[in-house]
Amino acid sequence: MSYRFELLKTDPKTRARLGLMTTAHGEVRTPVFMPVGTQGTVKALTPEMLKEAGAEIILGNTYHLTLRPGHDLIREHGGLHRFMHWDRSILTDSGGFQIFSLGPLRRITEEGVHFQSHIDGSRHFLTPEKAVEIQEALGSDIMMCLDDCTPYPADRGYAEKSMALTHRWAKRCREAKRSESQALFGIVQGGVHRDLRQASVEALAAIGFDGYAVGGLSVGEPKELMMETLEATAPLLPAGQARYLMGVGTPEDIVEGVHHGIDLFDCVMPTRCARNGLLFTNRGKVVIRNARYRTDQAPLDETCDCYTCRNFSRAYLRHLFIAREILALLLNTIHNVRFYLALMERIRTAVAGGTFEAFRRSFRGGHAEDDAGPMPDGRADEIVKPSEEDEP
Amino acid sequence: MSYRFELLKTDPKTRARLGLMTTAHGEVRTPVFMPVGTQGTVKALTPEMLKEAGAEIILGNTYHLTLRPGHDLIREHGGLHRFMHWDRSILTDSGGFQIFSLGPLRRITEEGVHFQSHIDGSRHFLTPEKAVEIQEALGSDIMMCLDDCTPYPADRGYAEKSMALTHRWAKRCREAKRSESQALFGIVQGGVHRDLRQASVEALAAIGFDGYAVGGLSVGEPKELMMETLEATAPLLPAGQARYLMGVGTPEDIVEGVHHGIDLFDCVMPTRCARNGLLFTNRGKVVIRNARYRTDQAPLDETCDCYTCRNFSRAYLRHLFIAREILALLLNTIHNVRFYLALMERIRTAVAGGTFEAFRRSFRGGHAEDDAGPMPDGRADEIVKPSEEDEP
Repeated sequence: MSYRFELLKTDPKTRARLGLMTTAHGEVRTPVFMPVGTQGTVKALTPEMLKEAGAEIILGNTYHLTLRPGHDLIREHGGLHRFMHWDRSILTDSGGFQIFSLGPLRRITEEGVHFQSHIDGSRHFLTPEKAVEIQEALGSDIMMCLDDCTPYPADRGYAEKSMALTHRWAKRCREAKRSESQALFGIVQGGVHRDLRQASVEALAAIGFDGYAVGGLSVGEPKELMMETLEATAPLLPAGQARYLMGVGTPEDIVEGVHHGIDLFDCVMPTRCARNGLLFTNRGKVVIRNARYRTDQAPLDETCDCYTCRNFSRAYLRHLFIAREILALLLNTIHNVRFYLALMERIRTAVAGGTFEAFRRSFRGGHAEDDAGPMPDGRADEIVKPSEEDEP
Repeated sequence: MSYRFELLKTDPKTRARLGLMTTAHGEVRTPVFMPVGTQGTVKALTPEMLKEAGAEIILGNTYHLTLRPGHDLIREHGGLHRFMHWDRSILTDSGGFQIFSLGPLRRITEEGVHFQSHIDGSRHFLTPEKAVEIQEALGSDIMMCLDDCTPYPADRGYAEKSMALTHRWAKRCREAKRSESQALFGIVQGGVHRDLRQASVEALAAIGFDGYAVGGLSVGEPKELMMETLEATAPLLPAGQARYLMGVGTPEDIVEGVHHGIDLFDCVMPTRCARNGLLFTNRGKVVIRNARYRTDQAPLDETCDCYTCRNFSRAYLRHLFIAREILALLLNTIHNVRFYLALMERIRTAVAGGTFEAFRRSFRGGHAEDDAGPMPDGRADEIVKPSEEDEP
């Protein structure tokens, strides 16, 4: 078993943690953000660009990869790492969340979930055993259990039944696992009910996993409720193992998640926002198509060390975006991914130096340079839209 | 005057030439291919990727840049080089060809050409003096005269009138030129009439330019007629100056162009074909979406040294293309541009070693790996289509 998680420090003033994860593909310093590589590529970036941005681990989507190009093809290529030319760590989800978001195209039974492909309508059946088999074919460093993601709102009875199914599926995943070199994480459910969350943590810990994810958050509930549930759940998780908050979130959400003791995050927000011209900077969000940047010769973010900020002006980025040039997608994505990964570096430095609480308070005071309107919800954005070619 | 062209060798068996061009931004070894950077970017590539592919000079389109983002804005940025972060040489066209292709949206007078923007329908008036002024604002290393591109077919009377106008405009461009650091090339017209081509060469040489382009070819005439006209025109051009065949072409066309004594080429073919999944290899053209590449673990071209061929399989490239991933556009473009630039390296090596004629004969024997159908015409592809967002 080559997976290992070492808890290096817990901040005495908050629950923030510093950790070192070791996988078959190297070390991952936590808290960490995982850029999302849905279809075997983090959209618009080469693996070298990801490395230059500081990525140590990325996320791959089992649902998408099994439909296209297929996990058998990827196994024949020697796994997802070789297929996509990425030699650092990969976490794969189970496909459960994407299937959950298919709505009428899916039907859940005790045995597993029947669904139709959003690409061609073909019928598929995913079981806990199959989810593990696929992820073993992909060869990811961290696999996720198939879970039944409880929607919001859900009444207590529904949430409890859904959670119990998740636990039975988690046990079947654990038993199906064959690979020695891959880790398997369990997923805590229980909706926004604190006692269910506690029961879920206990049930999963009793099965025993290499790490634990908090699932079923950022699925439409108010932000306060999400944070309350997280605050009640995270401290219950086994302290010696990695904690992953799935599909979250904004920079502010991530700082709060770290505050509550989370180690791993993923979200399509930096990449998707980049493609839509919404850029994160240390002075706030920038809507690059705004006329105010037409003649602006300054870099996007004076304090950023990314390739885009080192070499191009806001006026040029605006021109590329308005002219719908492919290079706009590259340069914007490079910057936003670097912004997220540099944020994680600042967080780790603050936790290491005992200044995380001060960092958190000053970070929350950040303002938007442009009035970008409400930010899209990171996880809701991930929902599969059958009519779209773009990434769920 | 920092521009210089040195003729290093003329092949004794053919008219192929080896040259060294020096501009304010460095050396350019000829024969050379210029990737097209229509809107201040070679589509899908960073400047660093272009350099890694071996590009020493690129082409910028005056028509597009003056409409968006505007040449004044680019001048304020210190010129096109700084605006787009490209420190090697740039040749700009005059905008004439794109305006010529606007059809009913343009009207030619003695003074200049009235046209409407394909972006917003706004009205503009371009004169020879203005074309030079814009290119001086852009700060390109090589500027082109505004010409009246004679269409095909055109009767002799029309071709003669059109040519005479091009000559009067060339003289006005020459007189309008202020910049000492930028070169100015004249453009030979005359349709497919040999005597007119000869008259055009003489008229332009009498005015005196830093280099000469063969214009009005690859505008719809049969390939044989294009080559016959080129063969009759190129040898008449002043031997000591650079010769540029505008908007051409396929790899085969370029080899033939070199054979007739051409030094500079440009074409959207490698970049546009890449975006459409048509890839050039030393074994022929590959239509990457074909099912035969589904499980193909080999690189696109075993003999190619580009980033794409060094790191990715045909199966992965096919997957990216079918999944409509942005990375497909990057990787395909990197390869096709490298294919063209590596071809130019092979041509220069052959001319230097006295083996160009043998190279040319073996090259013409190349076959298509896939039946890709007839190749799109490179120059016709450049025509402005008002309804398209994509590059003309």
